[in-house]
Amino acid sequence: MFEFSIAATDGRARAGVFATPHGPLATPVFAPVGTQAAVKTLTPAQVGELGASLVLANTYHLYLRPGDYLIRDLGGLHEFMQWPAPILTDSGGFQVFSLSKSRKIDDDGVTFKSHVDGSSHRFTPERSISIQENLGADVIMAFDECSDPNDRAYTRLAMQRTHRWAERCLASKSRSDQALFAIVQGGVDPELRRESAAFIARLDTPGIAIGGLSVGETKEEMHAMLDVVTQALPPGKPRYLMGVGTPEDLLDAVGRGVDIFDCVLPTRLARHHSAFSPDGRLNLMNAGFARDERPIDGTCDCYTCRTFSRGYLRHLIVAGELLAGTLLSIHNLRSLIRLVAEVRLSIFDGTFQDRRAAWLVHWQGNAQKSGRTAPAIR
Amino acid sequence: MFEFSIAATDGRARAGVFATPHGPLATPVFAPVGTQAAVKTLTPAQVGELGASLVLANTYHLYLRPGDYLIRDLGGLHEFMQWPAPILTDSGGFQVFSLSKSRKIDDDGVTFKSHVDGSSHRFTPERSISIQENLGADVIMAFDECSDPNDRAYTRLAMQRTHRWAERCLASKSRSDQALFAIVQGGVDPELRRESAAFIARLDTPGIAIGGLSVGETKEEMHAMLDVVTQALPPGKPRYLMGVGTPEDLLDAVGRGVDIFDCVLPTRLARHHSAFSPDGRLNLMNAGFARDERPIDGTCDCYTCRTFSRGYLRHLIVAGELLAGTLLSIHNLRSLIRLVAEVRLSIFDGTFQDRRAAWLVHWQGNAQKSGRTAPAIR
Repeated sequence: MFEFSIAATDGRARAGVFATPHGPLATPVFAPVGTQAAVKTLTPAQVGELGASLVLANTYHLYLRPGDYLIRDLGGLHEFMQWPAPILTDSGGFQVFSLSKSRKIDDDGVTFKSHVDGSSHRFTPERSISIQENLGADVIMAFDECSDPNDRAYTRLAMQRTHRWAERCLASKSRSDQALFAIVQGGVDPELRRESAAFIARLDTPGIAIGGLSVGETKEEMHAMLDVVTQALPPGKPRYLMGVGTPEDLLDAVGRGVDIFDCVLPTRLARHHSAFSPDGRLNLMNAGFARDERPIDGTCDCYTCRTFSRGYLRHLIVAGELLAGTLLSIHNLRSLIRLVAEVRLSIFDGTFQDRRAAWLVHWQGNAQKSGRTAPAIR
Repeated sequence: MFEFSIAATDGRARAGVFATPHGPLATPVFAPVGTQAAVKTLTPAQVGELGASLVLANTYHLYLRPGDYLIRDLGGLHEFMQWPAPILTDSGGFQVFSLSKSRKIDDDGVTFKSHVDGSSHRFTPERSISIQENLGADVIMAFDECSDPNDRAYTRLAMQRTHRWAERCLASKSRSDQALFAIVQGGVDPELRRESAAFIARLDTPGIAIGGLSVGETKEEMHAMLDVVTQALPPGKPRYLMGVGTPEDLLDAVGRGVDIFDCVLPTRLARHHSAFSPDGRLNLMNAGFARDERPIDGTCDCYTCRTFSRGYLRHLIVAGELLAGTLLSIHNLRSLIRLVAEVRLSIFDGTFQDRRAAWLVHWQGNAQKSGRTAPAIR
């Protein structure tokens, strides 16, 4: 279980297969986000048609609603949301820090108030693991502390706490059918990142996550941190870059040896009428699209682009039809999933380095902000 | 074109086939409502999977947004919304009377204000037909005036105006690939209904609609009017009962010789967390469903019932996930479409009269209010 084999490389980019209880994951892989046990506005059948393999769900949200014990009693997340392929849950840490109304961190854990009803709750590394064991995802995350990268002193403390919590998570884990990934932190400080990567690499985990990026730092800082971290990690474990990203981010990170991605960007953009396209992001609310008979992206093979005109999509948006969000989510998610699938093939072909420049041109204008999973809820 | 052949009868119930440019319609048929050129929250692919054949769209809404000329220029409704099977449009009359902010009726037409932006507009019989010709549905409706059934004097005037308008619609129609249905009015007065049915029956139309029912009258009044009207209509034309209805309404009306139905009820109930079931309507928001592992309806073959537990659906509702509306719409629409398909088979078998009582028991508790298409927009 959880064997990771690298089938091909091109420069530092890797194409591999990660074995999970719900089937093999071909990497690199992009995971749609199903925050509350649902990829927003899409049925699992539609998500499957996109070619998605891995789906992410959020521990913080599911702990609050409907509760991890309820999901356990109804057969676990796969049965509950009827997703037959692999699922990954985060630890809840990031959302506690970004969403909850107030929080108090100590060395043992975090006490926080629910963003839903203000009620008080407490997460510890052990509780995070027990929640994730109740949820039953294939890949689970150690409880970590995400710091303000510009506060170096705090970033060091948070990193050290993250390391101690990772050990406690590992010690408290009881299910053998879940892969626990520990998380590298360290802000934008190369020394801290190197130290964190070395520490996390020594733990006995089947994979490693890279946290604390795409949280406000510059692209150059993110790239520099990825360079430091991936070079300090063992090549034989899959690497998951949490909450990233844009098409450009994916290309940049795959080129630095990252294997697993998730991001709310495609579905969040869809709710804001925005679509990936070779001409940059299109805001389909614009009046200029009213009589546009073309699909969003003539090179895209998704249901939306195979079927509907920009004019129809604009009508749905203007008329307030929720179907617009569904159709744009299908397109945006398929765009990234297809890009990553093509990237994977190019690694086998040995053409990734060459094609990367062309892809970056194709996707330029879709670059702007990436987004982590936290503010995804609305 | 537009031939109607009755293949079997059982009592007054009829099973037929109505030929349209977009394929034959097997009757009785229930049409999902796609008010704004979209069945709310569902892709055309999902609507097709429900076994839907006919879809209704609303002239009033599409005239206002995105405009009938735009839809014409983008290839007509079938191309615009990518629905490959037959489409029916109403005349806009009912919505002008029920939705627009103010209206002034004269013998020539109606001047009204848009419910969207308050702008002024005017519909005449000729304009209603030209809009519907621009939209390009297979079945279109004559412009009619729907009156308060309790005001007999006004009901008579409105009926007479409806008759004159029907003649003008017929005279102004120019496309040969659209079937114009004229509409029987007359409130809840048997004499007026008989007079209206006789008048409308004499017009050269391939089908006849029955309007002004399910607008607040009692079930007994509706049944009495259906008895009067259907007995005064020629047997060889399809009969469309506008805006009806509940499972019971369908069974009652098929038994009285009605062939075509539409209603917003299934999708509107879905948006209010309500689902048809053999135990009566379920409000899936109720806490009692939180741990319910059963499907909504164990006898239903829809995607939702084949796939998800009531507990999961309740979670989606409580968490505010729009997917809940999609999944409940699938179930509610499939319930009615499947019921009507079974009714059709029973007419061939000669078992309709016998099975009707059992169906009424199965669907009792789903009886409450029916709903016309007007207030569907939200």
